Amino acid sequence: MRAIPTTPEAPGVTLARGVNRMLVQRGLAAIVEFPTTDGRRMDLCALGPKGEIWCIEVKSSRTDFMSDMKWSDYLPWCDRFFFAVPENFPAEILPPEHGLILADQWGAEVIRMAPHDPVASARRKAVTLRFARMAAERLTRLTDR
Amino acid sequence: MRAIPTTPEAPGVTLARGVNRMLVQRGLAAIVEFPTTDGRRMDLCALGPKGEIWCIEVKSSRTDFMSDMKWSDYLPWCDRFFFAVPENFPAEILPPEHGLILADQWGAEVIRMAPHDPVASARRKAVTLRFARMAAERLTRLTDR
Repeated sequence: MRAIPTTPEAPGVTLARGVNRMLVQRGLAAIVEFPTTDGRRMDLCALGPKGEIWCIEVKSSRTDFMSDMKWSDYLPWCDRFFFAVPENFPAEILPPEHGLILADQWGAEVIRMAPHDPVASARRKAVTLRFARMAAERLTRLTDR
Repeated sequence: MRAIPTTPEAPGVTLARGVNRMLVQRGLAAIVEFPTTDGRRMDLCALGPKGEIWCIEVKSSRTDFMSDMKWSDYLPWCDRFFFAVPENFPAEILPPEHGLILADQWGAEVIRMAPHDPVASARRKAVTLRFARMAAERLTRLTDR
């Protein structure tokens, strides 16, 4: 019997899964690929029990980080901003003023907590509503069979 | 080859699916079994594009309606409240001041629009956040394999 062929997952996807597990353990609820209004997508957006918004950008390698000049666009969309990287990532190239998460496919750890820089109230409302509707739409697509 | 045995779905579950499809068509994003703080669960809670909250209680039969004395507890949790019932339901027993949806397992139709009775601002914020976190948690449970 031949094994069923599977597509290998991109490193970013497996790291995002590990990050999501850590977020669950910390009491945050996250979705991946969260679109902002400018057509870009945060790798992970998470909501804490009191509504705190975390944005986590996953960078699997130096090249992955160097080729993305736009991560700072996400800063006004969240209360805390983190990079999540694998163990072999050269962490010294990351801006030290943001949070740092070490991740693998099984889990993750917050190495440096991101500073709290609250989003504007109207945007918090908009992000929370968009997050809610997007999560529910994805859930409906998965369960309406 | 024998058919895989399946559990027949409760009437409420199939009606809720039809209602959810109608909500999607109207641009609302819904989740089922949405818990309120008192330990009860709305059959469906939906969020409109501007954050309007709909609560829909599914009643599959006269007995189902008569045995529920607590549906009015949900009124302060939503902007519009609806009953969703199947075609053979005796609609005249329902309170006429709320919305009415006719549903089957494939779809549904709003027969009587519910009046707009806005929830308090703090509660809207709380419901939206709770909805967001619950939908994301369920999505993570379904997709983290």
